[in-house]
Amino acid sequence: MRSAPAAGTAAPRRGRPGYDLESLLAVAVTVFNERGYDGTSMEDLSKRLGISKSSIYYHVDAKEDLLRMALDRALDGLFGVADQVTSLEVPAIERLELLVRGSVRVLAERLPYVTLLLRARGNTSTQRRALARRRQFDQLVADLVAEAERAGDIRPDVDPAITARLLFGMVNSLAEWYRPAARPPGGGADRVDGLADAVCAVAFDGLRVAR
Amino acid sequence: MRSAPAAGTAAPRRGRPGYDLESLLAVAVTVFNERGYDGTSMEDLSKRLGISKSSIYYHVDAKEDLLRMALDRALDGLFGVADQVTSLEVPAIERLELLVRGSVRVLAERLPYVTLLLRARGNTSTQRRALARRRQFDQLVADLVAEAERAGDIRPDVDPAITARLLFGMVNSLAEWYRPAARPPGGGADRVDGLADAVCAVAFDGLRVAR
Repeated sequence: MRSAPAAGTAAPRRGRPGYDLESLLAVAVTVFNERGYDGTSMEDLSKRLGISKSSIYYHVDAKEDLLRMALDRALDGLFGVADQVTSLEVPAIERLELLVRGSVRVLAERLPYVTLLLRARGNTSTQRRALARRRQFDQLVADLVAEAERAGDIRPDVDPAITARLLFGMVNSLAEWYRPAARPPGGGADRVDGLADAVCAVAFDGLRVAR
Repeated sequence: MRSAPAAGTAAPRRGRPGYDLESLLAVAVTVFNERGYDGTSMEDLSKRLGISKSSIYYHVDAKEDLLRMALDRALDGLFGVADQVTSLEVPAIERLELLVRGSVRVLAERLPYVTLLLRARGNTSTQRRALARRRQFDQLVADLVAEAERAGDIRPDVDPAITARLLFGMVNSLAEWYRPAARPPGGGADRVDGLADAVCAVAFDGLRVAR
């Protein structure tokens, strides 16, 4: 499988570039993020890819198929972490921290897909379905916060639903400002771990130095 | 001055509704947030407002004027808080906390305007100018974090720029999930204070209960 072109770069310079579904999807998501899904036509995609519309229709039936695949890639990543974490037999606060760390990793690794998910507004049935899955994920985070609170590991004065939203407000903000290095040493895993550390340092232990 | 229609409601039911610039702007921002600025034409605005395009042009020269006014409303609110806070002669960590609280208030009070700001992607010169002002604000937050760290009030192991972004990742997430009550008791100030408390509890003192 050809590797997908990096976000923001033009289609590969070839007379007649070939795309498999994976690389086509990567370019489509880049364009959706630049212009908005609603503002992107199949004509726009065809121009950016440098292939005809019928070549795109060889892979998908409609633009919305690309959206669905892209949003699923983000959601499957997040739920993959959630499934792994919720099955662990460790205290809820540890599961919550692992969920935050895993989500940071998914965001960093699937950045354009998660960015598209976070910008989805429910204008199409595919977006509404994705928003419903996001709410399910948020509920799962809120349930973990509540469980950790009952266990006495999280301060009792915070509202679980609001806390869950603030926690993932931090995590999701990565989509706005994190830019992966072009050729990170060690694949960038160290940097992503550092970001996860920073999120957990703020969220679980707070910024203030106790005096 | 007529009060602006609430976000999400249709234009007032009148045979020939009149708008002043303020109420016209409020409706325009609602439509921009629903459809995206690029995806909204003056025709769309005219339909939603129930007035002719020439009636809109009585107030503004172009669609971008509405965008500029809307983004300035958000940015002026945030910089208003920043100017107030930075002039105080209190420790940096207190100024930082006041800046976070004030920003939560601006977000709650000017929600559609800040939402539009947070979604601006730099596709027009007005958006690029707004993004430059946002970066200036982010820098101001990072400087405050660094100052509080030097003063020994913030843990020394966090990077000021990343911390500033995580902090405002939490604050800005309000634009995605906070919905003001239609007729809040006491104007909703209590609820906004509660949100600011929640953000500061997580950010400054952390979720974990010390054992």
